[in-house]
Amino acid sequence: MGNETTRREELLVVAARLFSRKGYHATSMQDIADELNILRGSLYHYIESKEGLLYELMELGIQTLMERVRPIVESDLPPDEKLARLIQQHTVTIASYPDFMAVFLHELKSLSPPRRERILAYRQEYDHLVRRILVEGVECGVFRPVDVRVVSFALLGMVNWVYQWYSPDGPRSAEEIGAIFANVVLQGVLERPEK
Amino acid sequence: MGNETTRREELLVVAARLFSRKGYHATSMQDIADELNILRGSLYHYIESKEGLLYELMELGIQTLMERVRPIVESDLPPDEKLARLIQQHTVTIASYPDFMAVFLHELKSLSPPRRERILAYRQEYDHLVRRILVEGVECGVFRPVDVRVVSFALLGMVNWVYQWYSPDGPRSAEEIGAIFANVVLQGVLERPEK
Repeated sequence: MGNETTRREELLVVAARLFSRKGYHATSMQDIADELNILRGSLYHYIESKEGLLYELMELGIQTLMERVRPIVESDLPPDEKLARLIQQHTVTIASYPDFMAVFLHELKSLSPPRRERILAYRQEYDHLVRRILVEGVECGVFRPVDVRVVSFALLGMVNWVYQWYSPDGPRSAEEIGAIFANVVLQGVLERPEK
Repeated sequence: MGNETTRREELLVVAARLFSRKGYHATSMQDIADELNILRGSLYHYIESKEGLLYELMELGIQTLMERVRPIVESDLPPDEKLARLIQQHTVTIASYPDFMAVFLHELKSLSPPRRERILAYRQEYDHLVRRILVEGVECGVFRPVDVRVVSFALLGMVNWVYQWYSPDGPRSAEEIGAIFANVVLQGVLERPEK
């Protein structure tokens, strides 16, 4: 059972890498099997179809993010601390799984409509988690009365974009980048006494 | 000649829309010809190949952005004003051409390596324009001593992400969104006297 799980995860990681680099349509089940050193037919022991595989890895990506961020949003921390931790956690997650993020963004169009709707629903759920913190902060006067919708998208753009440029060999770790982001956003939204 | 130009631009716009919605590989030259109501063979009067078309629309996208932003960077305005105008201009441009942005991001992998390199070089040139403003602001003490590289990516993520969510029917115009973004970033990076 342990080996089954590992093999399945390996399959998702390999598929994410190939879909991200070559594109979903240009990647064949044979390519995936070759990379895993198994027979093409054996793939169907783990998944029902190529599209099922695409859906599964998108779902895994967004669920991983949600599981890490939800406890922060639902904690008793003050809103500015919640926001800093959310930015930190989201940044580190994207930096750890850039291929999942690329596939999530670039291949939504390759899913059949019902599956696409489910992924979009997850995404909306995540967006609402982010907005809850902003609303909370504005309501209790810790944040300026910003446009929560637009600022939430500003923040999501900043952290999601990490998949485009982050390199583990770069001058900053994912944790450091998350801290810089959190600092800029907090300075940007914090209420401060008139000078 | 006027009609030629118009026809060519129309071709690029239609191709951007189809590549963005269906993907480059899933879009045929026949699809593009159908959308334009011309014969497939007539397309080759305007372009040499499907990949040439992909390259051309990516180049048009980044050049449009560069032409709008370069005068701001090279102006005599103070760095905070330059930064606000760049954010504003970039936001409005992405909101006006979301399909070009989607193709630019999602289909880089579909270009042959030499063409991909050229697009990446444009992109790097643009990134440097953004960084110049930040460096200038930090050097003259208008901005805090932020990590220019990381903050430039934060800013680019924020504005580029607009292609993912902006709708002309939404509650805010592209100009308003640009102004909100500029405000958050400026508050985030401005140097301020100790309270």
